[in-house]
Amino acid sequence: MSRSSQFLTFARELAEAARLETLPGSSGDMAARNKGGAAYDPVTDADVAAEQAMRRLIEARYPDHGVSGEELPDRPSQNGLLWSLDPIDGTRSYICGLPTWVTLIGLLDEGRPSLGAIDVPRLDEFYIGCGDTSFLHSGGRETLLSVSGCRTVAEARFAATDPFMFHGEDADKVERIRGKARVTRFGHDGYAYARLAAGALDLVVESGLKTYDYNALIPVIRGAGGVFGDWQGGEAYEGGRVIAAATQQLFDEALDLLKR
Amino acid sequence: MSRSSQFLTFARELAEAARLETLPGSSGDMAARNKGGAAYDPVTDADVAAEQAMRRLIEARYPDHGVSGEELPDRPSQNGLLWSLDPIDGTRSYICGLPTWVTLIGLLDEGRPSLGAIDVPRLDEFYIGCGDTSFLHSGGRETLLSVSGCRTVAEARFAATDPFMFHGEDADKVERIRGKARVTRFGHDGYAYARLAAGALDLVVESGLKTYDYNALIPVIRGAGGVFGDWQGGEAYEGGRVIAAATQQLFDEALDLLKR
Repeated sequence: MSRSSQFLTFARELAEAARLETLPGSSGDMAARNKGGAAYDPVTDADVAAEQAMRRLIEARYPDHGVSGEELPDRPSQNGLLWSLDPIDGTRSYICGLPTWVTLIGLLDEGRPSLGAIDVPRLDEFYIGCGDTSFLHSGGRETLLSVSGCRTVAEARFAATDPFMFHGEDADKVERIRGKARVTRFGHDGYAYARLAAGALDLVVESGLKTYDYNALIPVIRGAGGVFGDWQGGEAYEGGRVIAAATQQLFDEALDLLKR
Repeated sequence: MSRSSQFLTFARELAEAARLETLPGSSGDMAARNKGGAAYDPVTDADVAAEQAMRRLIEARYPDHGVSGEELPDRPSQNGLLWSLDPIDGTRSYICGLPTWVTLIGLLDEGRPSLGAIDVPRLDEFYIGCGDTSFLHSGGRETLLSVSGCRTVAEARFAATDPFMFHGEDADKVERIRGKARVTRFGHDGYAYARLAAGALDLVVESGLKTYDYNALIPVIRGAGGVFGDWQGGEAYEGGRVIAAATQQLFDEALDLLKR
Protein backbone atom coordinates (compact mmCIF):
# COMPACT_ATOMS: atom_id res chain seq x y z
CA MET A 1 0.00 0.00 0.00
CA SER A 2 1.42 3.37 -1.00
CA ARG A 3 0.64 6.44 1.05
CA SER A 4 -1.42 7.67 -1.91
CA SER A 5 -4.12 5.03 -1.45
CA GLN A 6 -5.61 6.98 1.48
CA PHE A 7 -6.65 9.67 -1.03
CA LEU A 8 -8.92 7.52 -3.23
CA THR A 9 -12.11 8.91 -1.71
CA PHE A 10 -10.76 12.44 -1.73
CA ALA A 11 -10.04 12.19 -5.46
CA ARG A 12 -13.70 11.35 -5.99
CA GLU A 13 -14.69 14.42 -3.96
CA LEU A 14 -12.48 16.55 -6.18
CA ALA A 15 -14.14 15.13 -9.29
CA GLU A 16 -17.59 15.83 -7.89
CA ALA A 17 -16.68 19.42 -7.08
CA ALA A 18 -15.41 19.86 -10.64
CA ARG A 19 -18.60 18.39 -12.13
CA LEU A 20 -20.67 21.13 -10.50
CA GLU A 21 -18.69 23.66 -12.55
CA THR A 22 -18.29 21.75 -15.81
CA LEU A 23 -21.64 20.03 -16.40
CA PRO A 24 -23.95 23.08 -16.68
CA GLY A 25 -22.16 24.42 -19.78
CA SER A 26 -21.46 21.09 -21.43
CA SER A 27 -24.23 21.15 -24.01
CA GLY A 28 -22.05 23.18 -26.37
CA ASP A 29 -24.01 26.40 -26.52
CA MET A 30 -21.62 28.19 -24.15
CA ALA A 31 -19.30 30.94 -25.24
CA ALA A 32 -15.60 30.06 -25.28
CA ARG A 33 -12.90 32.66 -25.24
CA ASN A 34 -9.58 32.27 -26.96
CA LYS A 35 -6.64 31.53 -24.69
CA GLY A 36 -4.38 33.31 -27.17
CA GLY A 37 -1.44 32.11 -29.20
CA ALA A 38 -1.32 31.03 -32.80
CA ALA A 39 -3.17 27.72 -32.46
CA TYR A 40 -6.76 27.77 -31.36
CA ASP A 41 -6.91 26.59 -27.75
CA PRO A 42 -10.36 27.14 -26.29
CA VAL A 43 -10.76 27.57 -22.63
CA THR A 44 -14.01 28.20 -20.88
CA ASP A 45 -14.99 29.81 -17.64
CA ALA A 46 -15.99 26.33 -16.50
CA ASP A 47 -12.41 25.15 -16.95
CA VAL A 48 -11.01 27.77 -14.57
CA ALA A 49 -13.92 27.47 -12.12
CA ALA A 50 -13.50 23.68 -11.92
CA GLU A 51 -9.78 23.98 -11.20
CA GLN A 52 -10.46 26.60 -8.53
CA ALA A 53 -13.07 24.35 -6.90
CA MET A 54 -10.59 21.44 -6.72
CA ARG A 55 -7.78 23.68 -5.44
CA ARG A 56 -9.99 25.06 -2.67
CA LEU A 57 -10.70 21.52 -1.42
CA ILE A 58 -7.02 20.51 -1.53
CA GLU A 59 -5.80 23.68 0.18
CA ALA A 60 -8.43 23.37 2.92
CA ARG A 61 -7.91 19.68 3.63
CA TYR A 62 -4.23 19.13 2.80
CA PRO A 63 -2.39 22.45 2.98
CA ASP A 64 1.00 20.66 2.76
CA HIS A 65 0.18 19.19 -0.67
CA GLY A 66 1.28 20.89 -3.84
CA VAL A 67 -0.96 21.59 -6.82
CA SER A 68 -0.07 21.86 -10.50
CA GLY A 69 -2.97 22.53 -12.82
CA GLU A 70 -3.61 23.51 -16.40
CA GLU A 71 -5.22 26.84 -15.69
CA LEU A 72 -3.59 28.45 -12.62
CA PRO A 73 -0.07 28.95 -11.21
CA ASP A 74 1.68 26.03 -9.48
CA ARG A 75 1.61 25.72 -5.70
CA PRO A 76 4.70 23.83 -4.43
CA SER A 77 4.45 20.74 -2.21
CA GLN A 78 5.81 20.67 1.33
CA ASN A 79 5.64 16.89 1.81
CA GLY A 80 6.42 15.42 -1.61
CA LEU A 81 2.77 14.96 -2.60
CA LEU A 82 1.56 16.99 -5.57
CA TRP A 83 -1.85 17.04 -7.25
CA SER A 84 -1.83 17.30 -11.05
CA LEU A 85 -5.12 18.70 -12.37
CA ASP A 86 -6.65 19.14 -15.80
CA PRO A 87 -10.21 20.32 -15.18
CA ILE A 88 -11.38 19.83 -18.79
CA ASP A 89 -9.24 17.60 -20.98
CA GLY A 90 -10.90 17.85 -24.37
CA THR A 91 -12.03 21.48 -24.38
CA ARG A 92 -12.63 21.21 -28.14
CA SER A 93 -15.17 18.44 -27.54
CA TYR A 94 -16.62 20.41 -24.64
CA ILE A 95 -17.37 23.50 -26.73
CA CYS A 96 -18.96 21.28 -29.42
CA GLY A 97 -21.30 19.67 -26.88
CA LEU A 98 -19.65 16.28 -27.38
CA PRO A 99 -19.64 13.97 -24.33
CA THR A 100 -16.13 12.51 -24.06
CA TRP A 101 -14.18 15.35 -22.42
CA VAL A 102 -12.82 14.35 -19.01
CA THR A 103 -11.47 15.75 -15.77
CA LEU A 104 -7.98 14.45 -14.96
CA ILE A 105 -6.81 14.19 -11.35
CA GLY A 106 -3.38 12.75 -10.60
CA LEU A 107 -1.38 12.50 -7.39
CA LEU A 108 2.41 12.43 -7.67
CA ASP A 109 4.50 11.08 -4.79
CA GLU A 110 8.04 12.48 -5.02
CA GLY A 111 7.43 13.07 -8.71
CA ARG A 112 6.01 9.64 -9.54
CA PRO A 113 2.33 9.24 -10.54
CA SER A 114 0.91 7.08 -7.75
CA LEU A 115 -2.84 7.70 -7.98
CA GLY A 116 -4.87 8.73 -11.00
CA ALA A 117 -8.50 9.45 -11.79
CA ILE A 118 -10.33 10.05 -15.08
CA ASP A 119 -13.79 11.48 -14.47
CA VAL A 120 -16.32 11.51 -17.33
CA PRO A 121 -19.15 13.77 -16.12
CA ARG A 122 -21.46 13.49 -19.14
CA LEU A 123 -21.37 9.68 -18.93
CA ASP A 124 -21.27 9.47 -15.12
CA GLU A 125 -18.15 7.30 -15.28
CA PHE A 126 -15.31 7.70 -12.76
CA TYR A 127 -12.14 5.68 -13.39
CA ILE A 128 -9.54 5.49 -10.64
CA GLY A 129 -6.25 3.62 -10.34
CA CYS A 130 -3.70 3.23 -7.55
CA GLY A 131 -1.05 0.54 -7.16
CA ASP A 132 -2.07 -2.65 -8.92
CA THR A 133 -5.81 -2.02 -9.12
CA SER A 134 -8.12 0.27 -11.07
CA PHE A 135 -11.85 0.66 -10.70
CA LEU A 136 -14.75 2.14 -12.61
CA HIS A 137 -17.49 3.74 -10.52
CA SER A 138 -20.69 4.28 -12.50
CA GLY A 139 -24.38 4.29 -11.66
CA GLY A 140 -23.64 3.37 -8.04
CA ARG A 141 -21.67 0.27 -9.05
CA GLU A 142 -17.93 -0.38 -8.71
CA THR A 143 -16.24 -2.55 -11.35
CA LEU A 144 -12.67 -3.82 -11.31
CA LEU A 145 -10.96 -2.71 -14.52
CA SER A 146 -8.91 -5.00 -16.68
CA VAL A 147 -7.29 -4.35 -20.04
CA SER A 148 -7.90 -6.63 -23.02
CA GLY A 149 -5.47 -9.42 -23.90
CA CYS A 150 -4.67 -7.90 -27.31
CA ARG A 151 -1.07 -8.65 -28.31
CA THR A 152 -0.71 -7.37 -31.89
CA VAL A 153 -1.26 -4.08 -33.70
CA ALA A 154 -3.14 -5.97 -36.44
CA GLU A 155 -5.78 -6.98 -33.89
CA ALA A 156 -5.75 -3.69 -31.99
CA ARG A 157 -8.46 -1.09 -31.59
CA PHE A 158 -6.31 2.02 -31.87
CA ALA A 159 -7.13 5.58 -30.80
CA ALA A 160 -5.56 9.03 -30.90
CA THR A 161 -7.22 12.36 -30.24
CA ASP A 162 -6.45 13.93 -33.60
CA PRO A 163 -4.39 12.78 -36.61
CA PHE A 164 -3.25 16.38 -36.97
CA MET A 165 -1.57 16.33 -33.55
CA PHE A 166 1.36 14.54 -35.18
CA HIS A 167 3.85 16.53 -37.23
CA GLY A 168 6.58 15.63 -39.75
CA GLU A 169 8.26 12.31 -39.02
CA ASP A 170 5.91 11.62 -36.09
CA ALA A 171 2.95 11.66 -38.48
CA ASP A 172 4.61 9.06 -40.73
CA LYS A 173 5.39 6.85 -37.73
CA VAL A 174 1.84 6.93 -36.40
CA GLU A 175 0.50 6.29 -39.90
CA ARG A 176 2.34 2.92 -39.78
CA ILE A 177 0.26 2.01 -36.75
CA ARG A 178 -3.01 3.34 -38.17
CA GLY A 179 -2.42 1.50 -41.45
CA LYS A 180 -1.95 -1.78 -39.60
CA ALA A 181 -4.49 -1.52 -36.77
CA ARG A 182 -7.81 -3.37 -36.89
CA VAL A 183 -9.79 -0.20 -36.27
CA THR A 184 -8.87 3.43 -35.55
CA ARG A 185 -10.91 6.04 -33.72
CA PHE A 186 -10.09 9.72 -33.31
CA GLY A 187 -11.45 12.41 -31.06
CA HIS A 188 -11.65 11.21 -27.48
CA ASP A 189 -8.80 12.83 -25.50
CA GLY A 190 -8.30 11.26 -22.04
CA TYR A 191 -11.43 9.15 -22.44
CA ALA A 192 -9.59 6.84 -24.84
CA TYR A 193 -7.25 5.81 -21.99
CA ALA A 194 -10.25 5.13 -19.75
CA ARG A 195 -11.69 2.82 -22.41
CA LEU A 196 -8.30 1.11 -22.75
CA ALA A 197 -8.29 0.44 -18.99
CA ALA A 198 -11.80 -1.03 -19.40
CA GLY A 199 -10.68 -3.42 -22.14
CA ALA A 200 -12.62 -1.72 -24.94
CA LEU A 201 -9.64 -0.12 -26.72
CA ASP A 202 -6.21 -1.73 -27.00
CA LEU A 203 -3.74 0.97 -27.99
CA VAL A 204 -3.43 4.75 -27.70
CA VAL A 205 -0.49 6.69 -29.18
CA GLU A 206 -0.25 10.45 -28.84
CA SER A 207 2.22 13.32 -28.81
CA GLY A 208 2.31 16.88 -27.59
CA LEU A 209 0.72 16.02 -24.24
CA LYS A 210 1.46 18.14 -21.19
CA THR A 211 2.27 16.59 -17.81
CA TYR A 212 -1.25 17.30 -16.53
CA ASP A 213 -2.57 15.44 -19.62
CA TYR A 214 -0.84 12.14 -18.75
CA ASN A 215 -0.02 12.12 -15.00
CA ALA A 216 -3.52 10.95 -14.08
CA LEU A 217 -3.66 8.37 -16.88
CA ILE A 218 -0.62 6.35 -15.81
CA PRO A 219 -2.00 4.82 -12.56
CA VAL A 220 -5.36 4.05 -14.23
CA ILE A 221 -3.70 2.18 -17.12
CA ARG A 222 -1.15 0.35 -14.96
CA GLY A 223 -3.68 -0.52 -12.26
CA ALA A 224 -5.82 -2.19 -14.95
CA GLY A 225 -2.82 -4.28 -16.07
CA GLY A 226 -1.82 -2.14 -19.03
CA VAL A 227 1.52 -0.67 -20.09
CA PHE A 228 2.24 3.07 -20.24
CA GLY A 229 5.48 4.61 -21.49
CA ASP A 230 7.01 7.01 -23.97
CA TRP A 231 8.09 6.56 -27.61
CA GLN A 232 11.53 5.40 -26.43
CA GLY A 233 10.06 2.77 -24.11
CA GLY A 234 10.98 4.86 -21.05
CA GLU A 235 9.32 7.39 -18.82
CA ALA A 236 10.83 10.67 -20.01
CA TYR A 237 7.81 11.55 -22.20
CA GLU A 238 9.91 13.82 -24.41
CA GLY A 239 7.64 15.98 -26.57
CA GLY A 240 4.66 14.68 -24.61
CA ARG A 241 4.89 11.44 -26.62
CA VAL A 242 3.06 8.57 -24.96
CA ILE A 243 2.03 4.98 -25.70
CA ALA A 244 -0.61 3.13 -23.70
CA ALA A 245 -1.14 -0.53 -24.53
CA ALA A 246 -3.15 -3.46 -23.22
CA THR A 247 -0.15 -5.81 -23.12
CA GLN A 248 3.65 -5.65 -23.15
CA GLN A 249 3.73 -7.45 -26.53
CA LEU A 250 1.44 -4.84 -28.09
CA PHE A 251 3.44 -2.02 -26.50
CA ASP A 252 6.68 -3.47 -27.89
CA GLU A 253 5.28 -3.83 -31.41
CA ALA A 254 3.95 -0.25 -31.36
CA LEU A 255 7.31 0.96 -30.03
CA ASP A 256 9.10 -0.87 -32.82
CA LEU A 257 6.86 0.73 -35.47
CA LEU A 258 7.47 4.17 -33.93
CA LYS A 259 11.25 3.74 -33.68
CA ARG A 260 11.88 2.61 -37.24
CA MET B 1 -48.52 19.00 -42.20
CA SER B 2 -47.11 16.16 -44.27
CA ARG B 3 -48.57 12.68 -43.94
CA SER B 4 -45.30 11.66 -42.28
CA SER B 5 -45.97 13.69 -39.13
CA GLN B 6 -48.40 11.05 -37.88
CA PHE B 7 -45.42 8.71 -37.46
CA LEU B 8 -43.42 10.80 -34.95
CA THR B 9 -44.44 8.66 -31.99
CA PHE B 10 -43.95 5.46 -33.93
CA ALA B 11 -40.37 6.48 -34.81
CA ARG B 12 -39.69 6.79 -31.08
CA GLU B 13 -41.09 3.29 -30.54
CA LEU B 14 -38.74 1.97 -33.21
CA ALA B 15 -35.78 3.61 -31.48
CA GLU B 16 -36.79 2.12 -28.14
CA ALA B 17 -37.07 -1.35 -29.63
CA ALA B 18 -33.60 -0.95 -31.16
CA ARG B 19 -32.11 0.21 -27.83
CA LEU B 20 -33.10 -3.08 -26.20
CA GLU B 21 -30.83 -4.85 -28.68
CA THR B 22 -27.96 -2.36 -28.90
CA LEU B 23 -27.39 -1.14 -25.34
CA PRO B 24 -26.45 -4.43 -23.63
CA GLY B 25 -23.31 -4.91 -25.77
CA SER B 26 -22.30 -1.27 -25.95
CA SER B 27 -19.51 -1.35 -23.37
CA GLY B 28 -17.04 -2.52 -26.00
CA ASP B 29 -16.18 -5.96 -24.64
CA MET B 30 -18.43 -7.70 -27.18
CA ALA B 31 -17.10 -9.79 -30.03
CA ALA B 32 -17.52 -8.30 -33.49
CA ARG B 33 -17.36 -10.36 -36.62
CA ASN B 34 -16.06 -9.14 -39.92
CA LYS B 35 -18.65 -8.34 -42.55
CA GLY B 36 -16.13 -9.27 -45.23
CA GLY B 37 -14.50 -7.29 -48.01
CA ALA B 38 -11.11 -5.65 -48.09
CA ALA B 39 -11.79 -2.80 -45.68
CA TYR B 40 -12.60 -3.62 -42.10
CA ASP B 41 -16.32 -3.10 -41.57
CA PRO B 42 -17.37 -4.43 -38.19
CA VAL B 43 -20.90 -5.55 -37.66
CA THR B 44 -22.26 -7.02 -34.52
CA ASP B 45 -25.11 -9.32 -33.69
CA ALA B 46 -26.72 -6.30 -32.02
CA ASP B 47 -26.76 -4.47 -35.36
CA VAL B 48 -28.78 -7.21 -37.06
CA ALA B 49 -31.01 -7.83 -34.03
CA ALA B 50 -31.87 -4.12 -33.77
CA GLU B 51 -32.83 -3.92 -37.44
CA GLN B 52 -34.96 -7.05 -37.10
CA ALA B 53 -36.73 -5.57 -34.06
CA MET B 54 -37.58 -2.36 -35.96
CA ARG B 55 -38.69 -4.30 -39.06
CA ARG B 56 -41.01 -6.48 -36.98
CA LEU B 57 -42.76 -3.39 -35.60
CA ILE B 58 -43.11 -1.78 -39.05
CA GLU B 59 -44.38 -4.95 -40.72
CA ALA B 60 -46.91 -5.57 -37.95
CA ARG B 61 -48.24 -2.01 -37.75
CA TYR B 62 -47.83 -0.72 -41.32
CA PRO B 63 -47.62 -3.68 -43.72
CA ASP B 64 -47.95 -1.34 -46.73
CA HIS B 65 -44.76 0.56 -45.85
CA GLY B 66 -41.45 -0.39 -47.38
CA VAL B 67 -38.22 -0.89 -45.47
CA SER B 68 -34.65 -0.37 -46.57
CA GLY B 69 -32.01 -1.11 -43.96
CA GLU B 70 -28.28 -1.53 -43.70
CA GLU B 71 -28.31 -5.16 -42.66
CA LEU B 72 -31.18 -6.97 -44.39
CA PRO B 73 -32.79 -7.12 -47.88
CA ASP B 74 -35.10 -4.30 -48.97
CA ARG B 75 -38.87 -4.67 -48.66
CA PRO B 76 -40.68 -2.55 -51.29
CA SER B 77 -43.34 0.01 -50.39
CA GLN B 78 -46.93 -0.31 -51.52
CA ASN B 79 -48.03 3.23 -50.66
CA GLY B 80 -44.96 5.38 -51.35
CA LEU B 81 -43.76 5.41 -47.73
CA LEU B 82 -40.40 3.76 -47.06
CA TRP B 83 -38.47 3.45 -43.80
CA SER B 84 -34.71 3.86 -44.06
CA LEU B 85 -32.91 2.19 -41.13
CA ASP B 86 -29.34 2.12 -39.89
CA PRO B 87 -29.46 0.27 -36.56
CA ILE B 88 -25.91 1.19 -35.50
CA ASP B 89 -24.28 4.09 -37.33
CA GLY B 90 -20.77 4.15 -35.90
CA THR B 91 -20.06 0.45 -35.45
CA ARG B 92 -16.37 1.28 -34.98
CA SER B 93 -17.22 3.44 -31.97
CA TYR B 94 -19.62 0.77 -30.76
CA ILE B 95 -16.99 -1.97 -30.68
CA CYS B 96 -14.60 0.39 -28.85
CA GLY B 97 -17.16 1.11 -26.14
CA LEU B 98 -17.37 4.76 -27.18
CA PRO B 99 -20.74 6.47 -26.64
CA THR B 100 -21.54 8.42 -29.81
CA TRP B 101 -22.85 5.70 -32.15
CA VAL B 102 -26.46 6.31 -33.12
CA THR B 103 -29.53 4.60 -34.55
CA LEU B 104 -30.83 6.30 -37.70
CA ILE B 105 -34.51 6.11 -38.63
CA GLY B 106 -35.76 7.94 -41.70
CA LEU B 107 -39.12 7.96 -43.46
CA LEU B 108 -39.17 8.69 -47.18
CA ASP B 109 -42.38 9.84 -48.86
CA GLU B 110 -42.21 9.12 -52.60
CA GLY B 111 -38.43 9.09 -52.29
CA ARG B 112 -38.07 12.33 -50.34
CA PRO B 113 -36.85 12.27 -46.69
CA SER B 114 -39.83 13.64 -44.77
CA LEU B 115 -39.19 12.47 -41.21
CA GLY B 116 -35.89 11.67 -39.55
CA ALA B 117 -34.71 10.51 -36.15
CA ILE B 118 -31.24 10.21 -34.62
CA ASP B 119 -31.33 8.13 -31.45
CA VAL B 120 -28.32 8.18 -29.10
CA PRO B 121 -28.92 5.31 -26.67
CA ARG B 122 -25.80 5.74 -24.50
CA LEU B 123 -26.64 9.41 -23.90
CA ASP B 124 -30.43 8.96 -23.78
CA GLU B 125 -30.88 11.61 -26.45
CA PHE B 126 -33.50 11.25 -29.19
CA TYR B 127 -33.47 13.84 -31.99
CA ILE B 128 -36.41 13.97 -34.38
CA GLY B 129 -37.28 16.28 -37.25
CA CYS B 130 -40.29 16.59 -39.55
CA GLY B 131 -41.33 19.56 -41.67
CA ASP B 132 -40.05 22.81 -40.19
CA THR B 133 -39.44 21.61 -36.63
CA SER B 134 -36.97 19.35 -34.88
CA PHE B 135 -36.98 18.27 -31.24
CA LEU B 136 -34.61 16.70 -28.76
CA HIS B 137 -36.19 14.33 -26.24
CA SER B 138 -33.91 13.61 -23.30
CA GLY B 139 -34.46 12.85 -19.62
CA GLY B 140 -38.22 13.24 -20.02
CA ARG B 141 -37.88 16.75 -21.47
CA GLU B 142 -38.62 17.95 -24.99
CA THR B 143 -36.51 20.80 -26.40
CA LEU B 144 -37.04 22.62 -29.69
CA LEU B 145 -33.84 22.38 -31.73
CA SER B 146 -32.26 25.33 -33.44
CA VAL B 147 -28.97 25.54 -35.32
CA SER B 148 -26.36 28.20 -34.48
CA GLY B 149 -26.14 31.44 -36.41
CA CYS B 150 -22.60 30.70 -37.64
CA ARG B 151 -22.05 32.21 -41.10
CA THR B 152 -18.35 31.65 -41.88
CA VAL B 153 -15.97 28.69 -42.01
CA ALA B 154 -13.44 30.69 -39.96
CA GLU B 155 -15.91 30.78 -37.06
CA ALA B 156 -17.23 27.26 -37.57
CA ARG B 157 -16.98 24.22 -35.33
CA PHE B 158 -16.38 21.61 -38.02
CA ALA B 159 -16.76 17.83 -37.78
CA ALA B 160 -16.22 14.76 -39.92
CA THR B 161 -16.21 11.13 -38.86
CA ASP B 162 -12.71 10.31 -40.05
CA PRO B 163 -10.10 12.31 -42.02
CA PHE B 164 -9.23 9.06 -43.81
CA MET B 165 -12.75 8.79 -45.28
CA PHE B 166 -11.66 11.31 -47.94
CA HIS B 167 -9.52 10.15 -50.83
CA GLY B 168 -7.42 11.91 -53.47
CA GLU B 169 -8.81 15.28 -54.53
CA ASP B 170 -11.60 15.05 -51.94
CA ALA B 171 -9.01 14.94 -49.14
CA ASP B 172 -7.37 18.13 -50.44
CA LYS B 173 -10.74 19.87 -50.67
CA VAL B 174 -11.74 18.98 -47.13
CA GLU B 175 -8.31 19.99 -45.87
CA ARG B 176 -9.13 23.54 -47.08
CA ILE B 177 -12.09 23.55 -44.72
CA ARG B 178 -10.22 21.97 -41.80
CA GLY B 179 -7.34 24.44 -42.21
CA LYS B 180 -9.72 27.38 -42.04
CA ALA B 181 -12.26 26.21 -39.43
CA ARG B 182 -12.20 27.47 -35.84
CA VAL B 183 -12.11 23.96 -34.43
CA THR B 184 -12.31 20.46 -35.94
CA ARG B 185 -13.52 17.27 -34.29
CA PHE B 186 -13.39 13.76 -35.71
CA GLY B 187 -15.04 10.53 -34.73
CA HIS B 188 -18.74 11.02 -34.17
CA ASP B 189 -20.66 9.59 -37.15
CA GLY B 190 -24.36 10.56 -37.16
CA TYR B 191 -24.06 12.19 -33.75
CA ALA B 192 -22.23 15.15 -35.28
CA TYR B 193 -25.38 16.03 -37.25
CA ALA B 194 -27.45 15.81 -34.07
CA ARG B 195 -25.09 18.29 -32.38
CA LEU B 196 -25.33 20.54 -35.43
CA ALA B 197 -29.13 20.54 -35.12
CA ALA B 198 -28.69 21.46 -31.45
CA GLY B 199 -26.48 24.46 -32.28
CA ALA B 200 -23.28 22.98 -30.81
CA LEU B 201 -21.51 22.22 -34.10
CA ASP B 202 -21.78 24.40 -37.21
CA LEU B 203 -20.56 22.37 -40.17
CA VAL B 204 -20.24 18.70 -41.12
CA VAL B 205 -18.71 17.55 -44.42
CA GLU B 206 -18.44 13.88 -45.30
CA SER B 207 -18.20 11.51 -48.24
CA GLY B 208 -18.84 7.85 -48.91
CA LEU B 209 -22.13 7.84 -47.01
CA LYS B 210 -24.85 5.37 -47.96
CA THR B 211 -28.50 6.40 -48.32
CA TYR B 212 -29.34 4.91 -44.90
CA ASP B 213 -26.51 7.05 -43.43
CA TYR B 214 -28.06 10.37 -44.50
CA ASN B 215 -31.81 9.88 -45.12
CA ALA B 216 -32.61 10.27 -41.42
CA LEU B 217 -30.28 13.25 -40.97
CA ILE B 218 -31.90 15.53 -43.55
CA PRO B 219 -35.24 16.20 -41.75
CA VAL B 220 -33.44 16.70 -38.41
CA ILE B 221 -31.04 19.29 -39.86
CA ARG B 222 -33.68 21.10 -41.94
CA GLY B 223 -36.27 21.07 -39.15
CA ALA B 224 -33.73 22.81 -36.90
CA GLY B 225 -33.22 25.52 -39.54
CA GLY B 226 -30.01 24.12 -41.04
CA VAL B 227 -29.02 23.43 -44.64
CA PHE B 228 -28.31 19.94 -46.02
CA GLY B 229 -27.08 19.21 -49.52
CA ASP B 230 -24.38 17.58 -51.58
CA TRP B 231 -20.97 18.83 -52.77
CA GLN B 232 -22.60 20.31 -55.88
CA GLY B 233 -25.17 22.20 -53.85
CA GLY B 234 -27.92 19.82 -54.97
CA GLU B 235 -29.56 16.69 -53.65
CA ALA B 236 -27.99 13.95 -55.79
CA TYR B 237 -25.44 12.98 -53.09
CA GLU B 238 -23.07 11.53 -55.67
CA GLY B 239 -20.40 9.44 -53.93
CA GLY B 240 -22.29 9.86 -50.67
CA ARG B 241 -20.87 13.39 -50.43
CA VAL B 242 -22.84 15.58 -48.03
CA ILE B 243 -22.62 19.03 -46.43
CA ALA B 244 -24.67 20.03 -43.39
CA ALA B 245 -24.41 23.64 -42.26
CA ALA B 246 -26.02 25.92 -39.71
CA THR B 247 -26.75 28.67 -42.24
CA GLN B 248 -27.00 29.14 -46.00
CA GLN B 249 -23.99 31.51 -45.93
CA LEU B 250 -21.83 28.87 -44.22
CA PHE B 251 -23.09 26.17 -46.61
CA ASP B 252 -22.23 28.36 -49.61
CA GLU B 253 -18.71 29.11 -48.35
CA ALA B 254 -18.05 25.40 -47.67
CA LEU B 255 -19.44 24.55 -51.12
CA ASP B 256 -17.15 27.11 -52.70
CA LEU B 257 -14.09 25.65 -50.92
CA LEU B 258 -15.07 22.13 -52.04
CA LYS B 259 -15.70 23.13 -55.67
CA ARG B 260 -12.45 24.96 -56.30
